Amino acid sequence: MITLPLADYRPQHFALKVEGKVATITLDRPERKNPLTFESYAELRDTFRALRHEDRVKAVVLTGAGGNFCSGGDVFEIIEPLLERDTKGLLDFTQMTGDTVKAMRACPQPIVAAVEGVCVGAGAILAMASDIRFGTADAKVAFLFNRVGLAGCDMGACAILPRIIGQGRASELLFTGRVMGGEEAERWGFFNRLVAADALVEEAEAMARRLADGPTFANGITKKMLHMEWAMGVDEAIDQEAVAQALCMQTEDYHRAFHAFANKSKPVFEGN
Amino acid sequence: MITLPLADYRPQHFALKVEGKVATITLDRPERKNPLTFESYAELRDTFRALRHEDRVKAVVLTGAGGNFCSGGDVFEIIEPLLERDTKGLLDFTQMTGDTVKAMRACPQPIVAAVEGVCVGAGAILAMASDIRFGTADAKVAFLFNRVGLAGCDMGACAILPRIIGQGRASELLFTGRVMGGEEAERWGFFNRLVAADALVEEAEAMARRLADGPTFANGITKKMLHMEWAMGVDEAIDQEAVAQALCMQTEDYHRAFHAFANKSKPVFEGN
Amino acid sequence: MITLPLADYRPQHFALKVEGKVATITLDRPERKNPLTFESYAELRDTFRALRHEDRVKAVVLTGAGGNFCSGGDVFEIIEPLLERDTKGLLDFTQMTGDTVKAMRACPQPIVAAVEGVCVGAGAILAMASDIRFGTADAKVAFLFNRVGLAGCDMGACAILPRIIGQGRASELLFTGRVMGGEEAERWGFFNRLVAADALVEEAEAMARRLADGPTFANGITKKMLHMEWAMGVDEAIDQEAVAQALCMQTEDYHRAFHAFANKSKPVFEGN
Repeated sequence: MITLPLADYRPQHFALKVEGKVATITLDRPERKNPLTFESYAELRDTFRALRHEDRVKAVVLTGAGGNFCSGGDVFEIIEPLLERDTKGLLDFTQMTGDTVKAMRACPQPIVAAVEGVCVGAGAILAMASDIRFGTADAKVAFLFNRVGLAGCDMGACAILPRIIGQGRASELLFTGRVMGGEEAERWGFFNRLVAADALVEEAEAMARRLADGPTFANGITKKMLHMEWAMGVDEAIDQEAVAQALCMQTEDYHRAFHAFANKSKPVFEGN
Repeated sequence: MITLPLADYRPQHFALKVEGKVATITLDRPERKNPLTFESYAELRDTFRALRHEDRVKAVVLTGAGGNFCSGGDVFEIIEPLLERDTKGLLDFTQMTGDTVKAMRACPQPIVAAVEGVCVGAGAILAMASDIRFGTADAKVAFLFNRVGLAGCDMGACAILPRIIGQGRASELLFTGRVMGGEEAERWGFFNRLVAADALVEEAEAMARRLADGPTFANGITKKMLHMEWAMGVDEAIDQEAVAQALCMQTEDYHRAFHAFANKSKPVFEGN
Repeated sequence: MITLPLADYRPQHFALKVEGKVATITLDRPERKNPLTFESYAELRDTFRALRHEDRVKAVVLTGAGGNFCSGGDVFEIIEPLLERDTKGLLDFTQMTGDTVKAMRACPQPIVAAVEGVCVGAGAILAMASDIRFGTADAKVAFLFNRVGLAGCDMGACAILPRIIGQGRASELLFTGRVMGGEEAERWGFFNRLVAADALVEEAEAMARRLADGPTFANGITKKMLHMEWAMGVDEAIDQEAVAQALCMQTEDYHRAFHAFANKSKPVFEGN
């Protein structure tokens, strides 16, 4: 159980830093390229769930230590023990991993992934499930489930990846498990921006601070609507946005923006 | 109330020109970069609704006067008075703006946006809600709702923009409100083509004339199916297209195309 | 009626080669650029339906003979006779063509299209309905229904094409019927890769062999999930993938992958 404030929480399976309104989560087993384990999955899931109620944090950076993002589910700590599980035990695992992505999509804070080096398997999923992705030119992103005998449909990949890079490119990556390089990832819209490795986390945190200084109540509504409208008709989406935007027009931040504009100053948003 | 024929209608809040089968709507308060007001929104909505019944117009060009497309909702004519409205009044406004996009998607005529210079806020939405977009390299497109304290979910943006440029790029634009430049807009598929500023409206009108000279009944069906299949399964979409295309095979235009081909001439379509 | 094994079947309207686990279907009326007829549509539909039950074939290549992919529905063998059909007869035809695409999407084998030269009308649809597309730089892909008096909504194009290349680019192609060139098709994500003409079929077959040597049960699940999640919410897709992936974790191929990794060897998958 994660206790709030998150700034006081000391995770066991990754590093967590809260500076101002930005939380940075760093996968930090660099000697193994930051693999995931049963325990780290569960703690990530619980952390993103807790963020839903953590009003002091307004944006999140997700990254990895030591020049790599994440090597995915550990071969000896996840893949091997799964071989011994029964049907119920396997579903317990895949639901837990899926719940991690659900929690990332359900928290109101936008998540900025900072991706360097290896970003494969569940690591590629964590990047995909973020809202904005910065990457290095030599990043190697692979949805490599196929290469370990599994299907590409892991944690929402068959739904989400095609919407980011297109159905044809996603199909190739999911059927082959091949690496998408950094330049390719930027060209295809997976990475929002290529950044030099030594500036990567800094730029991701700068973006997160910028988002956290914005109208964060409204940002949370943007994230929620992007989620809710995924499989909704255009007319219904328009009607839903009319309600959601009317709600945002009643916030103080909307008033602040107008008054700042009228005074030729910069608005200072407070997220309410 | 717009009276037909549209060619005889004199709008109060924008310029309207009907030449042959093409209507050109020009936002024309160039000294303010063509902002929208309550009245111009309503008149745009009514005009696109009227187009549904205007059989003489077969394609539409939407553009702005004086080197800019549209600066969005006017700060003093829209944003400020909204600050005084109650909940019902705010929803009245957001539903009216949403209805404008609905009317653009519901009229059978394809809409070609010709985008130069500033294209921000509701202006970016009007471009997004068009079917085809020509733009200049120095166009500045910004879904800047975030910058005025609002959410990115305005008039369908969280549903439509991700389908045009991809979920990751759309997320960044909607969370930050940053400018998408003309070259970027073309690279990402927002602009279909970059055109020099002095040829922009001319080329958009040439495209509109080409569409208007096509099988316009079938074009209307194409537009309707793109809309109806937005959130429909693949198999259901295929079945629906079988019905829709069988309908189009009963038009005279289909016969005209075959006979022209058999005679090695160019078909002359009449939209029936 | 197609009889299995497919390797022994001799189609009447196209060439079929089964080598190992890969079937190559070649449209082969090169003197007419490989048009489709009522009979070849039906035989394609039946062949893809049969593939659903053909356990010996694990991937498919679809291509055309003589330097072109497919010129679409033949003008004198399809378009002309349709002019004489009544409403029921037309719907019979459009449902048959739609069923061909449905069968391509429903068979578990990934389909690799190898596209050279002319790829228009129903030919463009067959390429679009494949899973992976290799093309040449001088390929000419046109959804030209508009040019023969019809709507762009043919065989699922208004649903599928926007998901591959984006809503704006798809709209332009479907409203105008214009040619998308090979370079453009690669840039937009329609072609996964550009290949020299003299290596095209060879590379497509190499990709198909690679897929056929993979965990083919899991590949079939990937294809099924890409299809089922088309119009499903993100959370529902994640839950569905949890079930599907738990199923794949019970296959021998998953065990084979782990043991190969532990032994530092390459896994040999058997598709079970």
